[in-house]
Amino acid sequence: MAPPTPKLIVPIDLRKKPWEQKLPLHNRWHPDIPSVATVRTGQLFRIEMVDWTGGAIKDDNSASDIKYLDLSTVHYLSGPIRVVDDEGIAAKPGDLLAVEICNLGPLPGDEWGFTAIFDRENGGGFLTDHFPCATKAIWYFEGIYAYSPHIPGVRFPGITHPGIIGTAPSMELLNIWNKRERELEENGLNSLKLCEVLHSRPLANLPSTKGCLLGQIPEGTNEWEKTANEAARTIPGRENGGNCDIKNLSRGSKIYLPVFVEGANFSTGDMHFSQGDGEVSFCGAIEMSGFLELKCEIIRGGMKEYLTPMGPTPLHVNPIFEIGPVEPRFSEWLVFEGISVDETGRQHYLDASVAYKRAVLNAIDYLSKFGYSKEQVYLLLSCCPCEGRISGIVDAPNAVATLAIPTAIFDQDIRPKANKLPIGPRLVRNPDIPRCTYDGNLPITQNPGASGI
Amino acid sequence: MAPPTPKLIVPIDLRKKPWEQKLPLHNRWHPDIPSVATVRTGQLFRIEMVDWTGGAIKDDNSASDIKYLDLSTVHYLSGPIRVVDDEGIAAKPGDLLAVEICNLGPLPGDEWGFTAIFDRENGGGFLTDHFPCATKAIWYFEGIYAYSPHIPGVRFPGITHPGIIGTAPSMELLNIWNKRERELEENGLNSLKLCEVLHSRPLANLPSTKGCLLGQIPEGTNEWEKTANEAARTIPGRENGGNCDIKNLSRGSKIYLPVFVEGANFSTGDMHFSQGDGEVSFCGAIEMSGFLELKCEIIRGGMKEYLTPMGPTPLHVNPIFEIGPVEPRFSEWLVFEGISVDETGRQHYLDASVAYKRAVLNAIDYLSKFGYSKEQVYLLLSCCPCEGRISGIVDAPNAVATLAIPTAIFDQDIRPKANKLPIGPRLVRNPDIPRCTYDGNLPITQNPGASGI
Amino acid sequence: MAPPTPKLIVPIDLRKKPWEQKLPLHNRWHPDIPSVATVRTGQLFRIEMVDWTGGAIKDDNSASDIKYLDLSTVHYLSGPIRVVDDEGIAAKPGDLLAVEICNLGPLPGDEWGFTAIFDRENGGGFLTDHFPCATKAIWYFEGIYAYSPHIPGVRFPGITHPGIIGTAPSMELLNIWNKRERELEENGLNSLKLCEVLHSRPLANLPSTKGCLLGQIPEGTNEWEKTANEAARTIPGRENGGNCDIKNLSRGSKIYLPVFVEGANFSTGDMHFSQGDGEVSFCGAIEMSGFLELKCEIIRGGMKEYLTPMGPTPLHVNPIFEIGPVEPRFSEWLVFEGISVDETGRQHYLDASVAYKRAVLNAIDYLSKFGYSKEQVYLLLSCCPCEGRISGIVDAPNAVATLAIPTAIFDQDIRPKANKLPIGPRLVRNPDIPRCTYDGNLPITQNPGASGI
Amino acid sequence: MAPPTPKLIVPIDLRKKPWEQKLPLHNRWHPDIPSVATVRTGQLFRIEMVDWTGGAIKDDNSASDIKYLDLSTVHYLSGPIRVVDDEGIAAKPGDLLAVEICNLGPLPGDEWGFTAIFDRENGGGFLTDHFPCATKAIWYFEGIYAYSPHIPGVRFPGITHPGIIGTAPSMELLNIWNKRERELEENGLNSLKLCEVLHSRPLANLPSTKGCLLGQIPEGTNEWEKTANEAARTIPGRENGGNCDIKNLSRGSKIYLPVFVEGANFSTGDMHFSQGDGEVSFCGAIEMSGFLELKCEIIRGGMKEYLTPMGPTPLHVNPIFEIGPVEPRFSEWLVFEGISVDETGRQHYLDASVAYKRAVLNAIDYLSKFGYSKEQVYLLLSCCPCEGRISGIVDAPNAVATLAIPTAIFDQDIRPKANKLPIGPRLVRNPDIPRCTYDGNLPITQNPGASGI
Repeated sequence: MAPPTPKLIVPIDLRKKPWEQKLPLHNRWHPDIPSVATVRTGQLFRIEMVDWTGGAIKDDNSASDIKYLDLSTVHYLSGPIRVVDDEGIAAKPGDLLAVEICNLGPLPGDEWGFTAIFDRENGGGFLTDHFPCATKAIWYFEGIYAYSPHIPGVRFPGITHPGIIGTAPSMELLNIWNKRERELEENGLNSLKLCEVLHSRPLANLPSTKGCLLGQIPEGTNEWEKTANEAARTIPGRENGGNCDIKNLSRGSKIYLPVFVEGANFSTGDMHFSQGDGEVSFCGAIEMSGFLELKCEIIRGGMKEYLTPMGPTPLHVNPIFEIGPVEPRFSEWLVFEGISVDETGRQHYLDASVAYKRAVLNAIDYLSKFGYSKEQVYLLLSCCPCEGRISGIVDAPNAVATLAIPTAIFDQDIRPKANKLPIGPRLVRNPDIPRCTYDGNLPITQNPGASGI
Repeated sequence: MAPPTPKLIVPIDLRKKPWEQKLPLHNRWHPDIPSVATVRTGQLFRIEMVDWTGGAIKDDNSASDIKYLDLSTVHYLSGPIRVVDDEGIAAKPGDLLAVEICNLGPLPGDEWGFTAIFDRENGGGFLTDHFPCATKAIWYFEGIYAYSPHIPGVRFPGITHPGIIGTAPSMELLNIWNKRERELEENGLNSLKLCEVLHSRPLANLPSTKGCLLGQIPEGTNEWEKTANEAARTIPGRENGGNCDIKNLSRGSKIYLPVFVEGANFSTGDMHFSQGDGEVSFCGAIEMSGFLELKCEIIRGGMKEYLTPMGPTPLHVNPIFEIGPVEPRFSEWLVFEGISVDETGRQHYLDASVAYKRAVLNAIDYLSKFGYSKEQVYLLLSCCPCEGRISGIVDAPNAVATLAIPTAIFDQDIRPKANKLPIGPRLVRNPDIPRCTYDGNLPITQNPGASGI
Repeated sequence: MAPPTPKLIVPIDLRKKPWEQKLPLHNRWHPDIPSVATVRTGQLFRIEMVDWTGGAIKDDNSASDIKYLDLSTVHYLSGPIRVVDDEGIAAKPGDLLAVEICNLGPLPGDEWGFTAIFDRENGGGFLTDHFPCATKAIWYFEGIYAYSPHIPGVRFPGITHPGIIGTAPSMELLNIWNKRERELEENGLNSLKLCEVLHSRPLANLPSTKGCLLGQIPEGTNEWEKTANEAARTIPGRENGGNCDIKNLSRGSKIYLPVFVEGANFSTGDMHFSQGDGEVSFCGAIEMSGFLELKCEIIRGGMKEYLTPMGPTPLHVNPIFEIGPVEPRFSEWLVFEGISVDETGRQHYLDASVAYKRAVLNAIDYLSKFGYSKEQVYLLLSCCPCEGRISGIVDAPNAVATLAIPTAIFDQDIRPKANKLPIGPRLVRNPDIPRCTYDGNLPITQNPGASGI
Repeated sequence: MAPPTPKLIVPIDLRKKPWEQKLPLHNRWHPDIPSVATVRTGQLFRIEMVDWTGGAIKDDNSASDIKYLDLSTVHYLSGPIRVVDDEGIAAKPGDLLAVEICNLGPLPGDEWGFTAIFDRENGGGFLTDHFPCATKAIWYFEGIYAYSPHIPGVRFPGITHPGIIGTAPSMELLNIWNKRERELEENGLNSLKLCEVLHSRPLANLPSTKGCLLGQIPEGTNEWEKTANEAARTIPGRENGGNCDIKNLSRGSKIYLPVFVEGANFSTGDMHFSQGDGEVSFCGAIEMSGFLELKCEIIRGGMKEYLTPMGPTPLHVNPIFEIGPVEPRFSEWLVFEGISVDETGRQHYLDASVAYKRAVLNAIDYLSKFGYSKEQVYLLLSCCPCEGRISGIVDAPNAVATLAIPTAIFDQDIRPKANKLPIGPRLVRNPDIPRCTYDGNLPITQNPGASGI
């Protein structure tokens, strides 16, 4: 009978740099990046991938690699993969590409990952005005479980998933992206909320030749120069899928991706051992290298059949996802709430981002009462299997967002108690977490009494 | 032995108006509204409640009751309930009040509910620029299940919960609310996003004597006048809990409420047979009358012990919730994604509200391909047990929000299919859903091609 | 619109005896017991029921009511209910009757139950050779939760279900039952295993006029005499369903019952707030009065279509069940194993009953190390939501059975620990559990060293 | 930092025979089999293993390998593994060995398995009197999913687990096993039930030098001869764990094994991609080669602390198991029931094995109505994640056992329906399943009308 072993179509050698791999990686979206392999529908195949930084972050006790990481180089993706049907006919623009995740995991021999807070001047994170310093936690894996020497007393099964999976954009779609993001970058300050303006995170990540890697397009050529100047950054999720960071996209899930170019040319990367909803610290999942075992199906004409444009062109669509049936079965959740009133006491109108920020800050402050530093909890909530929900979005002026944390990940009972035993010395768990000093200035809006560092 | 039957402390007579009940209801938050009953910690007691409109919405085929509902009168709450400990000492400001939901359900003999879209000029909803008309769906209950003559082909078990549970605010907290919401109402336009400005939903709901009901404070007195002018509306959730709309707050859940006044004086109402995360159509849950069986515990000094202020005063806190262990076990979820690019194609910066709006619109358009009108789906997604997640909130400029729908609630397979059978006549399910014409004008930002009605 | 409230078709007045109810109950299976009500397919209706003993067991601290209970009188059932379709045509022999459990619960005002071990001379239980004394535990309900003053430190959500639901047998089926059970009663000793012979539990429960209640058939008449002499006892489950004790048959479940007589004439009773798989102590569930809200469907010709006789006649069939989707979500289970070697060390051949007995005894001994008496644990394992599995039934000579207990029902950590804290005085939880002395003699096969009382 | 990759301590080369492996395997339990490796507590290590037959079964379309398999050679186990603590002190008799399963799976490059019915004259199975022929189904894996060319239309995620994990018995325990199993073999016929006597399955599997493999003990030596004559077969589960076949013993599970010899010397094997409760067809799981990643802990004195002897000596104990939190989330189950009345209509007394047999036969007959042969369903129910429960074990004379099947594993709706569409040609799924003719005679007790083949 036929050998059922999945065929390895993108191998990774961890001793080599992203640009030295046998099938070179890429870190931009562009229709002209050539596919590196072809798969047939129904075929089970295996793709390996580096971690999103391509090995720049080390398993050590220093956060300086985080502080000085060159963000122009991320994320390193495997692919593009061209998909053809049983008769060899390629996926076509207008089709849907259904990708099933049959299996996935860390690369054998590389069973560790990292979670980090980026420096305020280098990308920052959701709470960068509270946590401006570069910080890092290393995680080790024991099969399905992760534990960290930097955040003792927690251990949890990972819901492992790829942070990024997406098809190549057409030139038309790429132009739409570049235009709208450039407009935000240029005009954003006018309409932005004050609290956002105050920090120095970039409003958008526009194309740049710096750090650009374009797979098999040779660097230095005219083609490379042109492509690099057009190619979209991989940071945000967009119409092609991309950096969606859907934390439950694990074994048994199916992703229905719109096809914009001949062959679909999908790429994937940014493997997460585990992530919390929101991935709040930015480099917030447990980032690692890894592998995917996939199977594809083409739904001919599926874009028109199943997707409806949500904007001025037929390209303004989004992928659809089917979540797999295998997950940890948590029994108890502790839920923190936030409303759209910010830390200065200012009322915002039905702003779910502000509400979620407050919910996360509430959870950080609460858990820091159990022997952790706030930075430890911020890192933990970025990567543990916690759920971030939009609970109410209609009751003006307050959006209500909630953050639900499974209590079983802690080795102590973290629920509020009427007759609480005194918190003993064993619960002081503030180890020397890797951290780099922040050299900038804290924003004036911060309220040190409430959630200062 | 002691009779274990829960003691009924707030009875409701459904033939009477909210202000005619034996223990009069209230529809505002104010420290001076007198408590109507006292319970001891550990005691199991029962509270009955009217639906949030106090019986204004009828089980019929017309949406005119929705169109002309006087929103100044909602939500009608049962309480306040004063809580004392075993020795008769009342809960004190600074304590935490732990309220366990032991049981809950519809009132016997009143097993039905409604879900509605409000008229654009009367409250609207999350998608009011797409759905400006008043619309209504009636739901009937078969034990744990709900079905609607207006949305055929769906049936689901409810995760029943109270939409509102909260403690009385202190005068100091009430002043904070009124100040910050008034500032939004007055200055909001400057900072608001364009798409929000265009519609006529109120930015905030400020105190008003119109429609005000203050429990045992006699209407027409000076005390009533003063209190009504100060008392906060019940529409938004705030520091005291209130209208949190946390859809999983069902049997076995525990709510840890901050105590701001002597006795805690908590109130509850707005019972939902079921609700989707976000409650997107505004009157979006399956609204009904109902009962709660509760048990209280006082955690002395718990506010300082467990809560951290998230703002300028020690009162800027939020409740904590513990989710109960009994829920439907759904195996498969179909997930729709949204990014913070709006329907005009405009890019917003990490705006989870815009991203969630797009996710909901995507889901509505998708499901409307299976024989439903878009209004039917909008109503359905407001009240079925769907999950709204903030998946990514850090990857500038796109926030990623997702809406996950359990496929088992439909009597047809709603997943995308490569070899789809043609959708036959049995799937045309567009009945005469109760609907009132919208008399205003549609906003200019709307894109009829993408998601027009 | 149509009133959706379920119609009460069998009311119960708890102040009256089973034979005094408005619609008299019955405690035997016989085709001639007249139906007390008729329902249409699709109609939502409500049936109330007494507890299985008809109120003979009291909420007190004595087990003498258990010791002297007259077992000839149980179980008191509500019904029979005749089922007709939309056109008024009754269910017919050969049809399947699908009964959906839409809702169920204790009777309002009667929220308590009991679990008991019967005296060795009066029914006994699965472990009667280890626990010969009549013992009783009372349980109180707090909504979905049960707790017992007699077994402190445990509290769990009930998976409430009817222990008995079944259709009336035809005369032909009744004759089959009486014949085969009489043969066992008469010839059983020859083939039975030694350990079973030694105790005095009845091998079968044959028809008896003593204690017999036949609904609307007047006692003392010739018809009553004849029927009582033929009517089957309700103790065992049989082809008509009956006492199946399937612990997950809760809200949302569907039972497909074979129809043997015109109208189906189904009856139900023996409501359980909660039960462990096996219901090991015999009166092992949390027994209570209660109500069911049901909906019926007739599958015409369904017996031939869906059931296959498992014996010499077309009547040798069994019902099929569909389990509902709403259940507690337990995360951790501690699992005890048994093999088919009995307490004397004797090897049995692939005997799942012996293996399960050993698994239960193992669990009892283990949990008794945490401050409980063995009788407390025996009662607890009979009624808590534990799972009894046949894990291996093929590996001669040992069947392997397992008993899985959700750890969350205890207020202490019951898992084995390397660095265990000493078990302190707070864990000595041996209260005065109601218990009656056993006056007989213990069997010679018992091994006091291993599991003696 | 320390390399976190699990250390491979037992490698397998699939091109070699079991006795040719670098660390030779064994297929018997005996205290004198030398350990092949030593691990420290807390260390993460990896053990590889062959399938239970050591590669005797091929991925082909013939069942002759099953028909003529030499059962004296199974199961091939990896180990024994000696366990020492951090200070190098070995586990001691009386300790508990806690083994955590951190990860497990098929061996890379060997992602397939088989399920088989053994010939009636060569081991048979639970239903050997109904299915006497050797039959085989091959399964291929797509990551977490298995599918079979021989049973089309089903696909399910596996709950992968080792069928066998156990510690070495002491000589005293081994003598107990041999004595009691020999007594059954010699005297069994007297007490056995008729239906069991009629077929030719062995009552017990006693020690035999034939096919014996004893790890590093050289064959042909006196030591080998003596050990082989004493060593217990691996077929049944016993006090040391062994062939427990607990289907949920997957990732995250913990096994607490009693220690009988210095070092604990545990062995493991018989990897199952998936198994149904009962593993009814004998070779009933999806049998495969595989790997385990484990971590050990020693609970000093744990046997006395946590286990209670269930027989005449302190050695009559059983392991305890903790089930891991990661499993498929099935929403709907169809449940088949059996009572202790056999296929001839004969009544047995509370016999859970007879009841479970009837439940399995009911399920087989039912599912065969959906286009499958009965042998296909028998194989399927042996290996899919179905649950076998002891529902009632006290209601004389009928034990009630149930078999619950997750409906989601089928590509068609298998529930009973009132308005059933005719079963079309696509559902006739009777392919040429590999099967060997049975040459013996069928037993006289079989009832061809009910469930004959």
